[in-house]
Amino acid sequence: MTYCVGMMLDCGLVMMADTRTNAGMDNISTFRKLFTWEVPGDRVLILMTAGNLATTQAVVSLLDERTKAHGERDPSIYEVPSMFQAARLVADTLRTVIASHADAGQRADTTFNATLILAGQIKGGPVRLFLIYPEGNFIEAGSDTPFFQIGETKYGRPILVRAFDRTMNFERAVKLLLVSFDSTVKANLSVGPPFDLQLYKADSLMLEPKIRIAADAPYYQAISAGWGEALKTALDSLPDFDPCPQV
Amino acid sequence: MTYCVGMMLDCGLVMMADTRTNAGMDNISTFRKLFTWEVPGDRVLILMTAGNLATTQAVVSLLDERTKAHGERDPSIYEVPSMFQAARLVADTLRTVIASHADAGQRADTTFNATLILAGQIKGGPVRLFLIYPEGNFIEAGSDTPFFQIGETKYGRPILVRAFDRTMNFERAVKLLLVSFDSTVKANLSVGPPFDLQLYKADSLMLEPKIRIAADAPYYQAISAGWGEALKTALDSLPDFDPCPQV
Repeated sequence: MTYCVGMMLDCGLVMMADTRTNAGMDNISTFRKLFTWEVPGDRVLILMTAGNLATTQAVVSLLDERTKAHGERDPSIYEVPSMFQAARLVADTLRTVIASHADAGQRADTTFNATLILAGQIKGGPVRLFLIYPEGNFIEAGSDTPFFQIGETKYGRPILVRAFDRTMNFERAVKLLLVSFDSTVKANLSVGPPFDLQLYKADSLMLEPKIRIAADAPYYQAISAGWGEALKTALDSLPDFDPCPQV
Repeated sequence: MTYCVGMMLDCGLVMMADTRTNAGMDNISTFRKLFTWEVPGDRVLILMTAGNLATTQAVVSLLDERTKAHGERDPSIYEVPSMFQAARLVADTLRTVIASHADAGQRADTTFNATLILAGQIKGGPVRLFLIYPEGNFIEAGSDTPFFQIGETKYGRPILVRAFDRTMNFERAVKLLLVSFDSTVKANLSVGPPFDLQLYKADSLMLEPKIRIAADAPYYQAISAGWGEALKTALDSLPDFDPCPQV
């Protein structure tokens, strides 16, 4: 499993992905699921992946044009004129990879599906955030739903729904995401740290430094331990139930 | 879908079930999913159901011996000598009902499975809480896992994991459950109020009055509205993220 969240804020993008992959309970590994492409001043693209690892790695390799010799690579992801075209390119690549193994998938114990979150900005256009399905179609985040989750989305959703506010700053957004990730990690063994975090300031056309938050990072520990206490205090602040029949 | 939670506290049992059933998005209804059997001074049994409604209603009818004429009914659920035997009786009934439709299930668009939570006390024994699977086997809650959820369990789980404490009183337990139910209702259309609540004081061998909490009950409204604010305050109480590279 996997847990990734992409948020579109007024101040830019906040993208976080876990790094645990598993092929069965007894075969877990750490792999990067957050990838970026950047031409400073021209474009910034951030991709997060959930699903079959062979599929998502193949998608990223194809987008990088790693099939070609180093000197001959000219990835079209650096050429597309808009975020919509970028989403279409990524989606087509995903569908092609899945289709190429579809027959074998019928015989395998698993499917080769994957779901992606793509976000970024290309010069002249706005910041955009897309959720790309294995079928190769995609949806875009709007002001009503300004964040997307993929993977194990349920445990971490209630806090996002309640506390998301697109005017918040990066510092608060990362705090909110860590609470959401921690709730998921505590409930599903197949989601785990370290977490990859990528921030992007709107209209900067330049990525912020990559951040990896380890399981023993003091800030993550503080959030994880502090949230339990904070929740109990929150519960205390609400009125107790009065078990008289006229509820 | 469905959401039911059964909790075993030091002071007794707290059982809550939603009442929404659906056969597709466009066919929703309200049905009771919480059932009780009681012989004051001798035994108290509380059953909650998730899954195929035809299956769970058949199980309850069979346990009530509704196949017999009114005068001839002598349900063995009033006779079994222990909670373990009661769980076995309910589990066998469930397996039999599912098996009787198993072949048709292969042809239907859906399966006829169901999962149950059974709790109660029989004179001379302790309070016990069971989770019964469609295969007719079951597990019992112990001190490490003193609550069970069935149905749409994920959205409402993080708050239970964080705030559950078996020494809490009924008033706080119901508050905690309503927060968990409200998180689920906000995320899954197939879970909805009113909620049925049954309390049982340990060793009383007598059920507390049945309580139904409606969508517009002032207390539920207060919890639902107050929890969003309480969560934001809880998030405020944690330190903001510092986006310097040395996390």
